[in-house]
Amino acid sequence: MSSVDIPMKQRLWSPLVRDLVPYVPGEQPKINNLIKLNTNESPFPPSPKVREAVISALGLDGDVLRLYPDPDASSLKQVIATYHGLATNQVFLGNGSDEVLAHIYTAFFKQSLPILSPDISYSFYPVYSQLYAVETVQIPLDADFRIDVNDYKVPNGGVILANPNAPTGVLLSLDQIRQLLSNNPESVVVIDEAYIDFGGQSAIALINEFDNLVVCHTVSKSRALAGLRIGMVFGQAHLIEALERVKNSFNSYPLDRLAIAGGVASYEDDAYFQSTCQALIDLREDLVSKLQGLGFDVLPSHANFIFARHPQHEAVTLAKGLRESGIIVRHFAKPRIDQFLRITIGTAEQNQALVSRLQEIL
Amino acid sequence: MSSVDIPMKQRLWSPLVRDLVPYVPGEQPKINNLIKLNTNESPFPPSPKVREAVISALGLDGDVLRLYPDPDASSLKQVIATYHGLATNQVFLGNGSDEVLAHIYTAFFKQSLPILSPDISYSFYPVYSQLYAVETVQIPLDADFRIDVNDYKVPNGGVILANPNAPTGVLLSLDQIRQLLSNNPESVVVIDEAYIDFGGQSAIALINEFDNLVVCHTVSKSRALAGLRIGMVFGQAHLIEALERVKNSFNSYPLDRLAIAGGVASYEDDAYFQSTCQALIDLREDLVSKLQGLGFDVLPSHANFIFARHPQHEAVTLAKGLRESGIIVRHFAKPRIDQFLRITIGTAEQNQALVSRLQEIL
Repeated sequence: MSSVDIPMKQRLWSPLVRDLVPYVPGEQPKINNLIKLNTNESPFPPSPKVREAVISALGLDGDVLRLYPDPDASSLKQVIATYHGLATNQVFLGNGSDEVLAHIYTAFFKQSLPILSPDISYSFYPVYSQLYAVETVQIPLDADFRIDVNDYKVPNGGVILANPNAPTGVLLSLDQIRQLLSNNPESVVVIDEAYIDFGGQSAIALINEFDNLVVCHTVSKSRALAGLRIGMVFGQAHLIEALERVKNSFNSYPLDRLAIAGGVASYEDDAYFQSTCQALIDLREDLVSKLQGLGFDVLPSHANFIFARHPQHEAVTLAKGLRESGIIVRHFAKPRIDQFLRITIGTAEQNQALVSRLQEIL
Repeated sequence: MSSVDIPMKQRLWSPLVRDLVPYVPGEQPKINNLIKLNTNESPFPPSPKVREAVISALGLDGDVLRLYPDPDASSLKQVIATYHGLATNQVFLGNGSDEVLAHIYTAFFKQSLPILSPDISYSFYPVYSQLYAVETVQIPLDADFRIDVNDYKVPNGGVILANPNAPTGVLLSLDQIRQLLSNNPESVVVIDEAYIDFGGQSAIALINEFDNLVVCHTVSKSRALAGLRIGMVFGQAHLIEALERVKNSFNSYPLDRLAIAGGVASYEDDAYFQSTCQALIDLREDLVSKLQGLGFDVLPSHANFIFARHPQHEAVTLAKGLRESGIIVRHFAKPRIDQFLRITIGTAEQNQALVSRLQEIL
């Protein structure tokens, strides 16, 4: 673009920003009594110990807030490392998994070869590729919306995928992940496990075996702490060191004191965590069978959401009909998946309201 | 560097990360009873309304934490905009001023011309320049450690400086800022006002006059909320839009629910804010005169710290002597300023302990 073509208001922008198409998160409407099944939040509250820990961290007068947090959030790093049987230098923390994913692009993916990612996956990945000018080759899912790891055997500067994949919910086995890692010894392979706690097997088990593996987790889904903003990366120490360098060149203190305290409490209450994950899985299986009973095709989900289409009804029409009753689900106006709805698993009551409303619409 | 020279552990890193030299924040020691005058935190607690607001935001069971925060943090944006007499689209929020400064580099400074910055200023600026590969020309402060805005009249892709400057504490007047802006109509000029509330006049007053002005604030100093991580940018809407694009291509939710609630409460309690700012200024003037009485040269400070040297004593020796008594100040081993100590203004008792200990050492 020649300079005369630049809109006046963009005159002082960095040229790259003129072409950026930002990520659009699921809406967070400020309306009460909505049944919000659009952003994969937990239907359960977090462990009650989280609230107690935050209040305790505040002290009697909030005085501690005048001090910077520990830039390494060591207390949280220690608890999480112990939880997963890792060393603390195999754990990286950031402000939600979106921030840690961004740092992953800077730390590993600015290479001469393009990175590989599924054509249908977390829609933030192509946004990072834009922001960091990382060339990306999208590998199509197969006809059943599955990732075939043997499609990722071409030369590349890195691989990133979600497992279970989003928005499909479809899971790769640990053996398939192992195959993917073996196929790509000279690239960092990022497995984004935001939804792994709902029935998948984490690739954390492979970290000491593969020096090219990076695994991302978040407290936003299975730990019901989307409101606190904590994301984690696991990998061998040499990979974590690259992330620490990037983080410490960007923002020394991404986790505030209250988030650190709340995060520690969540990891310390494992009984609550395990019981809510199992309850979610039970709710999902119940909802899947009810939707199948209504004629929906539902992809096999190992996440806290399902991806479903109805052979006789337009997804847009269904989403609109649900919305009229105050039920919000997510629809992606994208090739191949525009006939699907991504529906977060809600409480038993919310799921029943969804099913009842769909019965009326169909 | 040829690939054979790359250390094995850096083999999978992005090449740019191999050369990154991260920012080193002032230490946050985990030792009790230290007199911590090294990171410019407030000696006063935040407004008591902050603690109340955080507890209120948690609700009775912390259930709200399962939901993502408002990605725009609109409630906080509104309160801050009103406070400064701006429109909400003239306010950008992020996870501390370090994060918003990083986004400023991406949004405005990736240009064909180098940016300009003082040779002595916030030591994170050159780190951002590295991270984002932004060529930077450092303009020397004058012999009295002042910024001369007429030195910034060379062609450039942007200007960034702190006012009051760090670690000197020296202030530019609003007229000097106006001159700087007038000299650079085709560049974004960033005034980082982390310390403006301790006696300076904010350039926010110039925002509607200059379409190239960007002003940064933080709650970490004058609002005693370093532990919450909130930074702000003010500017005309077309500049804020560029920052929103970058932020929404990086992390949709940089502010968690508790930080948003606490930030709102801080801005709503202006009486407390004004009284603590004035108390800090009084403490500073008292400490300056005591240190001058001990023979220190103290640069004229409009910040919550002072930058001081003693003609007969090595700064490193003084810092070491203070540390032996549990008093931590900051020393920068850098050309021109290695004989200075940067001393955060503490409580009256802390400042007296500092003065007494220096009397012993000198």
